[in-house]
Amino acid sequence: MAIRARILGLDPGLRFTGFGIIEVDGNRLRHIADGVIPTDGDTSVAERLRVLDAALTELLQTYAPDFAAVEETYVNRNATATLKLGYARGVALLAPARAGIPVAEYGAKTVKRAVVGTGNAEKSQVALMVRRLLPGATIKRADAADALAVAICHAHHLATASAIPAPLAATA
Amino acid sequence: MAIRARILGLDPGLRFTGFGIIEVDGNRLRHIADGVIPTDGDTSVAERLRVLDAALTELLQTYAPDFAAVEETYVNRNATATLKLGYARGVALLAPARAGIPVAEYGAKTVKRAVVGTGNAEKSQVALMVRRLLPGATIKRADAADALAVAICHAHHLATASAIPAPLAATA
Repeated sequence: MAIRARILGLDPGLRFTGFGIIEVDGNRLRHIADGVIPTDGDTSVAERLRVLDAALTELLQTYAPDFAAVEETYVNRNATATLKLGYARGVALLAPARAGIPVAEYGAKTVKRAVVGTGNAEKSQVALMVRRLLPGATIKRADAADALAVAICHAHHLATASAIPAPLAATA
Repeated sequence: MAIRARILGLDPGLRFTGFGIIEVDGNRLRHIADGVIPTDGDTSVAERLRVLDAALTELLQTYAPDFAAVEETYVNRNATATLKLGYARGVALLAPARAGIPVAEYGAKTVKRAVVGTGNAEKSQVALMVRRLLPGATIKRADAADALAVAICHAHHLATASAIPAPLAATA
Protein backbone atom coordinates (compact mmCIF):
# COMPACT_ATOMS: atom_id res chain seq x y z
CA MET A 1 0.00 0.00 0.00
CA ALA A 2 1.48 3.36 -1.03
CA ILE A 3 1.23 6.21 1.43
CA ARG A 4 0.23 9.64 0.23
CA ALA A 5 -0.07 12.34 2.88
CA ARG A 6 0.77 15.89 3.85
CA ILE A 7 2.59 16.33 7.15
CA LEU A 8 3.10 19.39 9.35
CA GLY A 9 6.24 19.18 11.51
CA LEU A 10 6.66 21.51 14.49
CA ASP A 11 9.65 22.40 16.67
CA PRO A 12 7.96 24.50 19.37
CA GLY A 13 9.47 27.30 21.42
CA LEU A 14 7.98 30.42 23.03
CA ARG A 15 10.43 32.72 21.21
CA PHE A 16 10.47 30.84 17.86
CA THR A 17 8.37 27.89 16.73
CA GLY A 18 9.75 26.21 13.63
CA PHE A 19 7.32 24.70 11.14
CA GLY A 20 7.79 22.56 8.04
CA ILE A 21 5.24 21.06 5.67
CA ILE A 22 6.10 18.13 3.41
CA GLU A 23 4.26 15.67 1.20
CA VAL A 24 5.02 11.98 1.11
CA ASP A 25 3.97 10.01 -1.99
CA GLY A 26 5.08 6.38 -1.81
CA ASN A 27 8.78 6.70 -0.98
CA ARG A 28 9.15 10.20 -2.43
CA LEU A 29 9.24 13.32 -0.27
CA ARG A 30 8.36 16.82 -1.42
CA HIS A 31 8.96 20.17 0.30
CA ILE A 32 5.85 22.39 0.55
CA ALA A 33 6.75 25.15 3.00
CA ASP A 34 8.83 26.00 6.06
CA GLY A 35 9.51 28.92 8.36
CA VAL A 36 9.35 30.15 11.93
CA ILE A 37 6.63 31.79 14.01
CA PRO A 38 8.20 34.42 16.28
CA THR A 39 6.47 35.96 19.30
CA ASP A 40 7.26 39.33 20.89
CA GLY A 41 9.08 38.92 24.22
CA ASP A 42 7.86 42.39 25.30
CA THR A 43 4.23 41.17 25.40
CA SER A 44 2.58 38.93 28.04
CA VAL A 45 2.86 35.14 27.87
CA ALA A 46 -0.90 34.89 27.23
CA GLU A 47 -0.57 37.26 24.25
CA ARG A 48 2.46 35.38 22.89
CA LEU A 49 0.53 32.09 23.07
CA ARG A 50 -2.43 33.74 21.33
CA VAL A 51 -0.15 34.88 18.49
CA LEU A 52 1.40 31.38 18.21
CA ASP A 53 -2.04 29.72 18.23
CA ALA A 54 -3.41 32.11 15.59
CA ALA A 55 -0.39 31.49 13.31
CA LEU A 56 -0.66 27.69 13.70
CA THR A 57 -4.41 27.82 13.03
CA GLU A 58 -3.73 29.80 9.83
CA LEU A 59 -1.06 27.28 8.73
CA LEU A 60 -3.50 24.40 9.32
CA GLN A 61 -6.17 26.15 7.24
CA THR A 62 -3.77 27.15 4.43
CA TYR A 63 -1.96 23.82 4.01
CA ALA A 64 -4.58 21.37 5.32
CA PRO A 65 -2.10 18.70 6.53
CA ASP A 66 -3.28 15.12 7.21
CA PHE A 67 -0.93 14.66 10.17
CA ALA A 68 1.01 16.78 12.62
CA ALA A 69 4.29 15.73 14.27
CA VAL A 70 5.85 17.62 17.20
CA GLU A 71 9.43 17.32 18.42
CA GLU A 72 9.83 16.37 22.09
CA THR A 73 12.66 18.76 22.85
CA TYR A 74 15.15 17.53 25.40
CA VAL A 75 15.09 19.67 28.52
CA ASN A 76 18.17 20.30 30.61
CA ARG A 77 17.71 23.88 31.76
CA ASN A 78 16.00 25.42 34.80
CA ALA A 79 12.32 25.09 35.78
CA THR A 80 11.35 28.52 34.38
CA ALA A 81 12.77 27.69 30.93
CA THR A 82 11.11 24.26 31.04
CA LEU A 83 7.74 25.81 31.94
CA LYS A 84 8.03 28.28 29.01
CA LEU A 85 8.85 25.43 26.62
CA GLY A 86 5.80 23.62 28.06
CA TYR A 87 3.53 26.57 27.20
CA ALA A 88 4.68 26.56 23.55
CA ARG A 89 4.55 22.76 23.23
CA GLY A 90 1.08 22.75 24.78
CA VAL A 91 -0.18 25.15 22.12
CA ALA A 92 1.67 23.24 19.36
CA LEU A 93 -0.07 20.01 20.45
CA LEU A 94 -3.45 21.69 20.94
CA ALA A 95 -3.80 23.58 17.64
CA PRO A 96 -3.76 20.49 15.36
CA ALA A 97 -5.83 18.46 17.87
CA ARG A 98 -8.49 21.20 17.84
CA ALA A 99 -8.51 21.00 14.03
CA GLY A 100 -9.13 17.23 14.26
CA ILE A 101 -5.68 16.26 12.95
CA PRO A 102 -3.79 13.32 14.56
CA VAL A 103 -0.72 14.56 16.46
CA ALA A 104 2.39 12.38 16.85
CA GLU A 105 5.32 13.13 19.16
CA TYR A 106 8.93 12.10 18.51
CA GLY A 107 11.99 12.41 20.71
CA ALA A 108 15.07 14.17 19.28
CA LYS A 109 17.01 10.87 18.99
CA THR A 110 14.21 9.20 17.02
CA VAL A 111 14.11 12.18 14.63
CA LYS A 112 17.89 12.08 14.13
CA ARG A 113 17.85 8.33 13.54
CA ALA A 114 15.09 8.70 10.92
CA VAL A 115 16.83 11.53 9.05
CA VAL A 116 20.57 10.85 9.46
CA GLY A 117 20.63 7.18 10.49
CA THR A 118 22.07 7.70 13.97
CA GLY A 119 20.53 9.11 17.14
CA ASN A 120 23.76 10.92 18.03
CA ALA A 121 23.98 13.06 14.87
CA GLU A 122 24.99 16.72 15.14
CA LYS A 123 22.40 19.44 14.49
CA SER A 124 24.34 20.51 11.35
CA GLN A 125 24.18 16.94 9.95
CA VAL A 126 20.40 16.94 10.40
CA ALA A 127 20.09 20.27 8.52
CA LEU A 128 22.36 18.92 5.73
CA MET A 129 20.27 15.76 5.31
CA VAL A 130 17.00 17.73 5.40
CA ARG A 131 18.31 19.89 2.51
CA ARG A 132 19.40 16.74 0.61
CA LEU A 133 16.06 14.95 1.17
CA LEU A 134 13.99 18.03 0.34
CA PRO A 135 15.49 19.87 -2.64
CA GLY A 136 13.79 23.24 -2.94
CA ALA A 137 13.67 23.90 0.80
CA THR A 138 15.35 27.20 1.58
CA ILE A 139 15.30 26.80 5.41
CA LYS A 140 16.21 30.24 6.68
CA ARG A 141 16.41 29.24 10.35
CA ALA A 142 17.59 26.14 12.22
CA ASP A 143 14.17 25.76 13.92
CA ALA A 144 12.59 25.26 10.47
CA ALA A 145 15.13 22.52 9.61
CA ASP A 146 14.27 20.73 12.86
CA ALA A 147 10.56 21.03 12.06
CA LEU A 148 11.08 19.54 8.58
CA ALA A 149 13.15 16.76 10.20
CA VAL A 150 10.29 15.75 12.51
CA ALA A 151 7.91 15.79 9.50
CA ILE A 152 10.33 13.46 7.62
CA CYS A 153 10.47 11.24 10.73
CA HIS A 154 6.69 10.92 10.69
CA ALA A 155 6.74 10.14 6.94
CA HIS A 156 9.15 7.24 7.65
CA HIS A 157 6.89 6.08 10.48
CA LEU A 158 3.83 6.07 8.16
CA ALA A 159 5.76 4.19 5.45
CA THR A 160 6.98 1.58 7.96
CA ALA A 161 3.53 1.13 9.51
CA SER A 162 1.95 0.67 6.05
CA ALA A 163 4.63 -1.91 5.07
CA ILE A 164 3.58 -4.30 7.86
CA PRO A 165 1.18 -6.99 6.53
CA ALA A 166 -2.34 -6.35 7.81
CA PRO A 167 -2.69 -9.47 10.06
CA LEU A 168 0.57 -8.62 11.86
CA ALA A 169 -0.38 -4.97 12.18
CA ALA A 170 -3.71 -6.01 13.68
CA THR A 171 -2.03 -8.01 16.43
CA ALA A 172 0.74 -5.45 17.11
CA MET B 1 -14.97 54.59 41.36
CA ALA B 2 -16.76 51.34 42.23
CA ILE B 3 -15.59 48.22 40.49
CA ARG B 4 -18.11 45.81 39.07
CA ALA B 5 -16.72 42.80 37.23
CA ARG B 6 -16.93 39.07 36.75
CA ILE B 7 -13.65 37.16 37.20
CA LEU B 8 -12.62 33.65 36.13
CA GLY B 9 -9.88 32.17 38.32
CA LEU B 10 -7.90 29.14 37.11
CA ASP B 11 -5.56 26.71 38.88
CA PRO B 12 -4.24 24.73 35.92
CA GLY B 13 -3.03 21.13 35.87
CA LEU B 14 -3.00 18.44 33.18
CA ARG B 15 -4.93 15.99 35.41
CA PHE B 16 -7.28 18.53 37.02
CA THR B 17 -7.73 22.23 36.26
CA GLY B 18 -9.65 24.07 38.97
CA PHE B 19 -11.92 26.93 37.97
CA GLY B 20 -13.86 29.49 39.97
CA ILE B 21 -16.07 32.36 38.84
CA ILE B 22 -16.89 35.28 41.14
CA GLU B 23 -18.45 38.70 40.84
CA VAL B 24 -17.06 41.79 42.53
CA ASP B 25 -19.41 44.74 43.10
CA GLY B 26 -17.73 47.54 45.01
CA ASN B 27 -16.24 45.73 48.00
CA ARG B 28 -18.70 42.84 47.89
CA LEU B 29 -17.82 39.43 46.45
CA ARG B 30 -20.30 36.91 45.11
CA HIS B 31 -19.78 33.24 44.19
CA ILE B 32 -21.05 32.31 40.75
CA ALA B 33 -19.58 28.86 40.02
CA ASP B 34 -16.64 26.56 40.67
CA GLY B 35 -15.45 23.10 39.76
CA VAL B 36 -12.68 21.10 38.14
CA ILE B 37 -11.98 20.06 34.56
CA PRO B 38 -10.49 16.55 34.55
CA THR B 39 -8.69 14.99 31.58
CA ASP B 40 -8.25 11.28 30.91
CA GLY B 41 -4.67 10.11 31.57
CA ASP B 42 -5.20 7.16 29.20
CA THR B 43 -5.49 9.50 26.18
CA SER B 44 -2.69 11.41 24.41
CA VAL B 45 -1.43 14.76 25.72
CA ALA B 46 -2.78 16.48 22.58
CA GLU B 47 -6.25 15.02 23.23
CA ARG B 48 -6.13 15.99 26.93
CA LEU B 49 -5.23 19.58 25.97
CA ARG B 50 -8.07 19.60 23.42
CA VAL B 51 -10.53 18.52 26.14
CA LEU B 52 -9.20 21.18 28.54
CA ASP B 53 -9.37 23.89 25.86
CA ALA B 54 -12.93 22.92 24.85
CA ALA B 55 -14.10 23.00 28.50
CA LEU B 56 -12.46 26.41 29.11
CA THR B 57 -13.97 27.80 25.90
CA GLU B 58 -17.41 26.62 27.05
CA LEU B 59 -16.92 28.22 30.49
CA LEU B 60 -15.92 31.51 28.83
CA GLN B 61 -19.02 31.43 26.64
CA THR B 62 -21.38 30.42 29.47
CA TYR B 63 -20.19 32.87 32.14
CA ALA B 64 -18.71 35.68 29.96
CA PRO B 65 -16.12 36.86 32.52
CA ASP B 66 -14.50 40.31 32.16
CA PHE B 67 -11.13 39.11 33.46
CA ALA B 68 -9.21 35.88 33.85
CA ALA B 69 -6.58 35.23 36.54
CA VAL B 70 -4.26 32.23 36.51
CA GLU B 71 -2.24 30.89 39.43
CA GLU B 72 1.53 30.66 38.84
CA THR B 73 2.01 27.31 40.53
CA TYR B 74 5.34 26.87 42.27
CA VAL B 75 7.40 24.15 40.64
CA ASN B 76 9.78 21.95 42.61
CA ARG B 77 9.45 18.62 40.85
CA ASN B 78 11.27 17.04 37.91
CA ALA B 79 11.45 18.35 34.33
CA THR B 80 8.74 15.98 33.02
CA ALA B 81 6.23 17.14 35.66
CA THR B 82 7.16 20.78 35.01
CA LEU B 83 6.67 20.33 31.25
CA LYS B 84 3.20 18.79 31.83
CA LEU B 85 2.23 21.69 34.10
CA GLY B 86 3.47 24.02 31.35
CA TYR B 87 1.14 22.38 28.78
CA ALA B 88 -1.91 22.94 31.02
CA ARG B 89 -0.88 26.48 32.03
CA GLY B 90 -0.25 27.33 28.37
CA VAL B 91 -3.80 26.31 27.45
CA ALA B 92 -5.22 28.10 30.54
CA LEU B 93 -3.48 31.33 29.46
CA LEU B 94 -4.39 30.88 25.78
CA ALA B 95 -8.14 30.17 26.04
CA PRO B 96 -9.12 33.55 27.65
CA ALA B 97 -6.58 35.45 25.47
CA ARG B 98 -8.16 33.92 22.35
CA ALA B 99 -11.56 35.12 23.63
CA GLY B 100 -10.15 38.66 23.98
CA ILE B 101 -10.24 38.63 27.80
CA PRO B 102 -7.32 40.19 29.77
CA VAL B 103 -5.34 37.50 31.60
CA ALA B 104 -3.50 38.24 34.86
CA GLU B 105 -1.01 35.93 36.57
CA TYR B 106 -0.42 35.75 40.32
CA GLY B 107 2.17 33.80 42.29
CA ALA B 108 0.94 31.50 45.09
CA LYS B 109 2.29 33.85 47.82
CA THR B 110 0.47 36.85 46.35
CA VAL B 111 -2.78 34.85 46.26
CA LYS B 112 -2.35 33.70 49.90
CA ARG B 113 -1.56 37.25 51.02
CA ALA B 114 -4.70 38.58 49.30
CA VAL B 115 -6.99 35.90 50.72
CA VAL B 116 -5.53 35.08 54.17
CA GLY B 117 -3.29 38.09 54.85
CA THR B 118 0.02 36.20 54.87
CA GLY B 119 2.06 34.64 52.06
CA ASN B 120 2.94 31.65 54.22
CA ALA B 121 -0.64 30.47 54.89
CA GLU B 122 -1.47 26.77 54.77
CA LYS B 123 -3.61 25.39 51.92
CA SER B 124 -6.39 24.58 54.44
CA GLN B 125 -6.43 28.21 55.69
CA VAL B 126 -6.87 29.43 52.11
CA ALA B 127 -9.82 27.06 51.59
CA LEU B 128 -11.36 28.18 54.91
CA MET B 129 -11.11 31.88 54.00
CA VAL B 130 -12.45 31.24 50.48
CA ARG B 131 -15.54 29.60 52.06
CA ARG B 132 -15.92 32.53 54.48
CA LEU B 133 -15.54 35.19 51.75
CA LEU B 134 -17.84 33.37 49.35
CA PRO B 135 -20.85 31.96 51.21
CA GLY B 136 -22.70 29.64 48.89
CA ALA B 137 -19.58 28.10 47.36
CA THR B 138 -19.66 24.32 47.75
CA ILE B 139 -16.05 23.71 46.55
CA LYS B 140 -15.93 19.98 46.05
CA ARG B 141 -12.20 19.83 45.30
CA ALA B 142 -9.14 21.72 46.58
CA ASP B 143 -8.24 22.82 43.01
CA ALA B 144 -11.54 24.74 42.84
CA ALA B 145 -10.79 26.52 46.15
CA ASP B 146 -7.38 27.59 44.76
CA ALA B 147 -9.06 28.83 41.58
CA LEU B 148 -11.57 30.89 43.59
CA ALA B 149 -8.65 32.23 45.66
CA VAL B 150 -6.83 33.55 42.57
CA ALA B 151 -10.11 35.14 41.39
CA ILE B 152 -10.46 36.87 44.81
CA CYS B 153 -6.82 38.00 44.51
CA HIS B 154 -7.60 39.64 41.16
CA ALA B 155 -10.73 41.30 42.65
CA HIS B 156 -8.51 42.86 45.37
CA HIS B 157 -6.06 43.97 42.70
CA LEU B 158 -8.85 45.66 40.68
CA ALA B 159 -10.21 47.38 43.81
CA THR B 160 -6.73 48.64 44.76
CA ALA B 161 -5.98 49.86 41.24
CA SER B 162 -9.32 51.73 41.08
CA ALA B 163 -8.66 53.38 44.49
CA ILE B 164 -5.61 55.21 43.13
CA PRO B 165 -6.53 58.79 42.07
CA ALA B 166 -6.57 59.07 38.28
CA PRO B 167 -3.58 61.47 37.89
CA LEU B 168 -1.37 59.14 39.95
CA ALA B 169 -2.59 56.06 38.07
CA ALA B 170 -1.75 57.77 34.77
CA THR B 171 1.88 58.35 35.78
CA ALA B 172 2.36 54.90 37.39
